[in-house]
Amino acid sequence: MEQMERIGISVAAGLLKEFDGMISEQGYQNRSEAVRDLIRTSLSRKRLENPDQKAVAAVCVVYNHHSSKLMQKLTHLQHNHLLETVCSMHIHLNSDDCMEVIILKGKVADINKVGENITSQKGVKLGKVNLIATQ
Amino acid sequence: MEQMERIGISVAAGLLKEFDGMISEQGYQNRSEAVRDLIRTSLSRKRLENPDQKAVAAVCVVYNHHSSKLMQKLTHLQHNHLLETVCSMHIHLNSDDCMEVIILKGKVADINKVGENITSQKGVKLGKVNLIATQ
Amino acid sequence: MEQMERIGISVAAGLLKEFDGMISEQGYQNRSEAVRDLIRTSLSRKRLENPDQKAVAAVCVVYNHHSSKLMQKLTHLQHNHLLETVCSMHIHLNSDDCMEVIILKGKVADINKVGENITSQKGVKLGKVNLIATQ
Amino acid sequence: MEQMERIGISVAAGLLKEFDGMISEQGYQNRSEAVRDLIRTSLSRKRLENPDQKAVAAVCVVYNHHSSKLMQKLTHLQHNHLLETVCSMHIHLNSDDCMEVIILKGKVADINKVGENITSQKGVKLGKVNLIATQ
Repeated sequence: MEQMERIGISVAAGLLKEFDGMISEQGYQNRSEAVRDLIRTSLSRKRLENPDQKAVAAVCVVYNHHSSKLMQKLTHLQHNHLLETVCSMHIHLNSDDCMEVIILKGKVADINKVGENITSQKGVKLGKVNLIATQ
Repeated sequence: MEQMERIGISVAAGLLKEFDGMISEQGYQNRSEAVRDLIRTSLSRKRLENPDQKAVAAVCVVYNHHSSKLMQKLTHLQHNHLLETVCSMHIHLNSDDCMEVIILKGKVADINKVGENITSQKGVKLGKVNLIATQ
Repeated sequence: MEQMERIGISVAAGLLKEFDGMISEQGYQNRSEAVRDLIRTSLSRKRLENPDQKAVAAVCVVYNHHSSKLMQKLTHLQHNHLLETVCSMHIHLNSDDCMEVIILKGKVADINKVGENITSQKGVKLGKVNLIATQ
Repeated sequence: MEQMERIGISVAAGLLKEFDGMISEQGYQNRSEAVRDLIRTSLSRKRLENPDQKAVAAVCVVYNHHSSKLMQKLTHLQHNHLLETVCSMHIHLNSDDCMEVIILKGKVADINKVGENITSQKGVKLGKVNLIATQ
C-alpha cells in the first residue's frame, strides 16, 4: 500500500462551492478524490508530450464490414514489431457499420505511427487514437 | 452500394504538395481517401455538439484491481437504463493496474452523464470518455 | 477581498513528488496556486458546455492582407448585434500574412456562431475560436 | 499570385449533402474554400507536433487587476530572449477582472515554455496558450 501525504490548499469560498457542486453532480464521493483526479490527469497530459513515454492507447475505428480486405489489414497492422501487446474488441453498430477498439502498448511516438496507419486505411470511416500515459 | 459524386477542389500548389507529403507518411493510398476522412471527422465533431445526437463512446479507465468494490460498481454502472448496449474489455497493464474499455451507445448527453459517473469512481486513477457520432 | 477556505487533500507520496516537479518546472511558486488553477480550469471547461453561459473568446485568424475585401468583411462581422463588446488586434506575420485576434463577449452559442462566420470567410487561411468562461 | 491546382475527390452522395449543409450554415461561400480550410488545419496541427516549428501564439490570461505586481511580471516575462516579437492587448471584463492576450512568436517549444511561465503566475485565474503554425 502506497504511503499517503496530506497537503493543505487555500481556495476562495465561492470557487470551492462551485467546485463542490460540479464534482457532486459528476458522482465524486469526496473532494480529495476529485482533486487527485485533476492532478493525475494533468501529469498524464504532460507525460504524453514526451515521444519516448510508455503509454497505452485505445484506437477506435468505425468501418463498413463489407470492406473485405480491411479486416485482414487491420489484423496485420496490429502484429507490428514496434509495439509490446495488442488486443482488440469488435462492436456491432448497425447492419453496415462496425466499431473496432484496438489496444496498443508502447512508446508514444510508436503508438502514434501505428495508430495513424490504422486510421488511414481505406474503408475506415472514422478513427481516433486515444492515449493514456502509464508509469 | 452508395452512390458516389465527384467534386473538384482548387488548392494552391504549395499547400497540395505539403498535404500529399503528410498523408503519404500517414499511410493514405490516395488523396480522395484523406479528404473524405477530413470531411467525416469535421461532420462527426459538429454532430457531437448536439446532446440528442446518437453516439458510441469508448470510456477508458485505469484502476488498481485490488480496489475490490470498484469492479462491482463499474459493472453496476454499465447496467444503466439510459443506454442501449454495453460491452467492455479488460486489459492487464502491470502487476497492479488494469485498463478497462467500456463501450456505451446512446445519446451524447446520456453517455456523458454515465461516463462521468464511471470516471469519478473512487479507485479510478485515470479516465476519459471518447465519443464518436454515429448516423 | 474574497474569503479563503483551507481544505486538506490526501495524495500518494509518489504522485505528489511528480506533481511538485512538474509545477516547479512550469513556474508555479507553490502547490496551492497550481491546484487552484486545475480547479478553475475544470470549472471553466464545464461551464462552457452550457450554450447560455457568458464567455469571452479570442478568435484568431491568419489571412493574406492582399485580400482587399476581407478586412472590410471582418470589421462588418464584428459589428454584430448578438454580442456585447468587440475589440481586435492586428499582428504583422510576414510580407504577405497578418494575424488578427478578435475579442468577442457574449453567450457561448452566439460566440460560436459569429466565430464560425469569421473563420469561414474567403481569404482566412487558418482560424480558431478560443473560449474562456467568465462568471 | 500562387499557382492553383484542381484536384478531383469522390465523395458519397449522402456525406456530401450533409457536408454542404454544415458549411453553408457556417458561412462558407463554396465547397473549395471549406475543404482548403480542413486541409490547412490538418497541416497546421501536424506541424505543431515539431518543437522546432515556427509558430505564433495567442496566450490568453484572465486576472484580477488589483494584483499589483502581476502586471509588472507579465510585462517582464514578455521581454524574453527566446522569442522574436511580442505585443499584447488588454480587455476590461468587469470591475475586478481583466483579460490580456499576449502574442508570442518563435519556436513551438520556446512558446510553450514562456506560455507556461505566464499562465502559472500567481494571480492568473485562467490561462491558455493557443498555437498556430506559420510557414
